[in-house]
Amino acid sequence: MDNSPARGTRDLLPSAVATRDRVLGLIQDVYRQFGYQRIETPALERIERLTSGQGGDNEKLLFRILRRGLDEQVAEATALSDLVDLGLRYDLTVPLTRFYSQYRAELPQPFRSFQFGPVWRAERPQRGRYRQFYQCDIDLFGEASVLAEVELIEATTAALAAVGLAGTTVRLSDRRFLAALASGAGVPEEGQAGFFVTVDKLDRVGWSGVETELREERGLSAEVVRAVRDTIDALSDLSTDKVVDALADAVPNLPTAVAEDLATTVRCLGALPGDQRWLFDPTLVRGMGYYTGQIFEISHPDSSGSIAGGGRYDELVGRSLGTAVPACGFSIGFERIVDLVPAAPPAERLAVLFESDVPVERALAVARRLRAERDAVVSPIRRSGKFPAQLTRLEGWGFTGFLSVKADQDLTELPDVRPLRGN
Amino acid sequence: MDNSPARGTRDLLPSAVATRDRVLGLIQDVYRQFGYQRIETPALERIERLTSGQGGDNEKLLFRILRRGLDEQVAEATALSDLVDLGLRYDLTVPLTRFYSQYRAELPQPFRSFQFGPVWRAERPQRGRYRQFYQCDIDLFGEASVLAEVELIEATTAALAAVGLAGTTVRLSDRRFLAALASGAGVPEEGQAGFFVTVDKLDRVGWSGVETELREERGLSAEVVRAVRDTIDALSDLSTDKVVDALADAVPNLPTAVAEDLATTVRCLGALPGDQRWLFDPTLVRGMGYYTGQIFEISHPDSSGSIAGGGRYDELVGRSLGTAVPACGFSIGFERIVDLVPAAPPAERLAVLFESDVPVERALAVARRLRAERDAVVSPIRRSGKFPAQLTRLEGWGFTGFLSVKADQDLTELPDVRPLRGN
Repeated sequence: MDNSPARGTRDLLPSAVATRDRVLGLIQDVYRQFGYQRIETPALERIERLTSGQGGDNEKLLFRILRRGLDEQVAEATALSDLVDLGLRYDLTVPLTRFYSQYRAELPQPFRSFQFGPVWRAERPQRGRYRQFYQCDIDLFGEASVLAEVELIEATTAALAAVGLAGTTVRLSDRRFLAALASGAGVPEEGQAGFFVTVDKLDRVGWSGVETELREERGLSAEVVRAVRDTIDALSDLSTDKVVDALADAVPNLPTAVAEDLATTVRCLGALPGDQRWLFDPTLVRGMGYYTGQIFEISHPDSSGSIAGGGRYDELVGRSLGTAVPACGFSIGFERIVDLVPAAPPAERLAVLFESDVPVERALAVARRLRAERDAVVSPIRRSGKFPAQLTRLEGWGFTGFLSVKADQDLTELPDVRPLRGN
Repeated sequence: MDNSPARGTRDLLPSAVATRDRVLGLIQDVYRQFGYQRIETPALERIERLTSGQGGDNEKLLFRILRRGLDEQVAEATALSDLVDLGLRYDLTVPLTRFYSQYRAELPQPFRSFQFGPVWRAERPQRGRYRQFYQCDIDLFGEASVLAEVELIEATTAALAAVGLAGTTVRLSDRRFLAALASGAGVPEEGQAGFFVTVDKLDRVGWSGVETELREERGLSAEVVRAVRDTIDALSDLSTDKVVDALADAVPNLPTAVAEDLATTVRCLGALPGDQRWLFDPTLVRGMGYYTGQIFEISHPDSSGSIAGGGRYDELVGRSLGTAVPACGFSIGFERIVDLVPAAPPAERLAVLFESDVPVERALAVARRLRAERDAVVSPIRRSGKFPAQLTRLEGWGFTGFLSVKADQDLTELPDVRPLRGN
């Protein structure tokens, strides 16, 4: 019988879960201090919401769920879409906007949300990419100023530092800057979405690939493409407050509000504790179509890709609520960072080794007394096989010590706990 | 737009999640001390495993998932079952036996597993019953003696006490006792499964209902039914070690091993700390077909139904591993107990109220200093509306205090934090 998990999914063994729980706990403690409150939505959402366009390309990766109570024969006469009424969520943002729209009257204003949970995407299985994975998001609804952006960045870099990932760099841009850059260079308004998609590929295909695609697929002239590249080159890797002046020079049609927001964010980032590094990255696009303002990612020297990303999306809540609500979010790449965090020191883990002639209540009683006396993890384990071999196995399973219990033993005092290392 | 969660599911607001996280944390701390290690399996399992008969009636409540990449037209010529290859798990036991069978060589022996996670059942929605809910299971694989049963009971009652649910009663029986009772009374071997199902209804339909069903649906004679009832009556609510003798008297064909196991369990339960209450309950059946030995439930004065249940299932792992492995599990009714636990005292939660002319970095800096100084939850909140009305709203949202920040204020020393209660 095939006992492996379903294709593209994985099981998590105790050591993996322990690391994940520790990392989640540290992140959540930091987010909680900033006032972010965990909410939870169901894994299942109505199919209409999951295919409404909010999910972008993720909608193509939807796991669709069959209606209940269907007759086995019904499929033979029915279109696929009529058989389906629910789907598994592919992100936490679409459910969050539904949640906020439904409970807004009961929620604090502004509302600081923390979410941690699995999402499902029917991706082609490949190394390190799974069909079920966890997302870890904070979102701030109801704050229109860049206070939202800066607080999200501060909380997220603090959370990353708490799990041992200090030394991060925040890369910053603004969708409104990209739009002004595009129209200033001569990209027609209706071609901007496609323009963003192509520029987003820069780190994968390089400038030559991007230039080719802009000309051949987006229909831009060599002159326009040249202007885009020159502007972006002039603005690359700026990490002082001079970025605001440089931006005004390079993109004369940049709206004043965008420049002012950038100036504030840059000032605030400069005041963050721990000399938080940041840079303006004019090539930063971020995939989702719903961003409307500043966007950001966090990179870390130990990871080639970014380990967190987010931005402002002021128009998404309006689609479900009917009223526009300023919104900004930041998502930690949980599955990526759990592979980067330093290991935790092992806890004390003791085996109460009992021979087969020891009454069960005696083994249980010793374990109970040991837990009370030492505040340690204690499990009774039956003696089996050769003694040294069993000790080696125990050590391999993470036990740090043991004590032996015999049938005729005087237990007024507990026997000594002996360490397993080096036995 | 309908922003409610999908039918039969629910959203969890911050206060509900906070309670659940607190309860889970307390339970997990206790289980961890006993050596139970959390594992995780995916929500999705192959459809064959979820419909193999291990899940009993839950298999009828399966959410089935459409294969990926199906053409919209394909359904019109295809049987329903050919469209489906995955399902959502309806419990944590079926995935656990798969997990153990797959990773046995890497896992400690015996293996102590803790699982907490959502399961899905397409039940008819009704009050208090949801299509997605959490299960909280511990299981011990590889221990054939009642040490497993007693340790699971000890750990679970300790976990319940830790969340504030002390004063529990353990109700105990044994599937092998029920089988001996049935055959002793004259129930034919092939009718035992149906006999158990009917007796299991006793607390819902009473003796008259059970007697009618045993006669009319199970085809038992009045004499057999009378013998069953007399034996059960003779054994009801025994909670001293006399239960073992009473059992031998009432069910002369009871195997010796069953009586010895019961004697050991009763002795061990008597030695548990905190004068743990227990009773032998001859009417206890538990729904699942896979139990093979002792079965148990825990009741609490504040709940009409049981709040935890489990038992030994020595044959289930063999179905996926090919080798029989002794197994015993205990599941806390998490969704039931979170409604029973006493509330936690509120944490300190402070609002930094800032006027619109206060620079963003100033509001953020005050919040940062306050977090460092007081180890409290601190969030900047924009001043809006009438001052007393805003304070009332803040208190309603769970804030316990606030301080005001003005644009021209000297912040060498932070302003005093003022309590919100009674403002």
